[in-house]
Amino acid sequence: MEIKVLHQVLEWNQDVSAEVRRTLAENKVCLINVMGSPGAGKTSLLAALIARLRGQFRIGVIEGDITGQSDAEKIAALHIPAVQLNTDGACHIEAMSIRNILPQFDLAALDVLFVENIGNLVCPAEFDIGENFRLTVLSIPEGDDKVAKYPLMFTDTDCLVLSKCDMLPYFDFDTARVTADYRAVNPEGPQFQTSGRTGAGMDALAAHLAGRIRAALA
Amino acid sequence: MEIKVLHQVLEWNQDVSAEVRRTLAENKVCLINVMGSPGAGKTSLLAALIARLRGQFRIGVIEGDITGQSDAEKIAALHIPAVQLNTDGACHIEAMSIRNILPQFDLAALDVLFVENIGNLVCPAEFDIGENFRLTVLSIPEGDDKVAKYPLMFTDTDCLVLSKCDMLPYFDFDTARVTADYRAVNPEGPQFQTSGRTGAGMDALAAHLAGRIRAALA
Repeated sequence: MEIKVLHQVLEWNQDVSAEVRRTLAENKVCLINVMGSPGAGKTSLLAALIARLRGQFRIGVIEGDITGQSDAEKIAALHIPAVQLNTDGACHIEAMSIRNILPQFDLAALDVLFVENIGNLVCPAEFDIGENFRLTVLSIPEGDDKVAKYPLMFTDTDCLVLSKCDMLPYFDFDTARVTADYRAVNPEGPQFQTSGRTGAGMDALAAHLAGRIRAALA
Repeated sequence: MEIKVLHQVLEWNQDVSAEVRRTLAENKVCLINVMGSPGAGKTSLLAALIARLRGQFRIGVIEGDITGQSDAEKIAALHIPAVQLNTDGACHIEAMSIRNILPQFDLAALDVLFVENIGNLVCPAEFDIGENFRLTVLSIPEGDDKVAKYPLMFTDTDCLVLSKCDMLPYFDFDTARVTADYRAVNPEGPQFQTSGRTGAGMDALAAHLAGRIRAALA
């Protein structure tokens, strides 16, 4: 399948997030901004969520990467509309790029648009891309000190997913420490533990997201 | 032990990397810029290298983090001069910060200064901080597609370290793929496999670095 690849043009002085949000609201599409480090398991998480949500919602995906299109190919193989956004070196996605890429989708035929942001635990958290809500993925191998060391990504999120939880036996990872650090910066934020390999926790996360998507589209 | 914590002031228009490099050369100090994702194992790698190199060289460490001082505390516990550099949100270290932090060290009493950059596989690669050479750390749990997806970090490096190699049995990680992708962008770059947990590969990496440090100081 041919993947459309768009390139991000940085327009630092213009924040069009409000315009993106208005366009999506008019078309009744819920935008979910998925963020986390390189290799946190964002693409695998999306595939698992798509399998559980596609019976309830019509889903599209924007795959953000600095270069290449391997992630968009994985999503397109699921027969889900996917467009690759290449930032050509830039460390985050901006609302301008979302605005430019929306015409690639038939918004009338979508309920949910996932954006997989650039793998980066720092910069993407600083940019409003017009999303309805944010999901931050932290994988067990990254270590239990990451909420304390990269606080903005966990403060400005609507949901924390601890991924690769099948790896807990092999790493010195204190989930209680992560929960306490997360609570300190984000007292109301929900938290889930998942494993892409075993599927553990995916049903609960999908049910939670379904509720939020319905609320956003209501 | 009290840790000195300095804050990075961004001065976008002034690149003082040449000045940093000159100051270090005058004082015969070799600066090594250590980069990689959050949780790649950079601090553990530094501790293992310090144990193997401290008999040959007088070592200091600058620990870069957005916030906090936990990594500098780990290094200071080894009785190595360590200063924490907090970027207060910024995603990389700049040469200006290195220039400002150098007076915190007795350069006449140092041979090697390691800089642990912010955990980020994107932005730090774009900034020359006045280093003699760069070391990029990629951990097995991050996945074998990372060289292809984040090429600059692997193109502009002098040494690739595959860390957490004791985890190879638990992840679908094709080291041959990483080597091929690395060779494509960095034909001459050496590559090592290490494990902070078992110590595997650390002697070979330390011997390689010792050679490069001696060449830089000659």
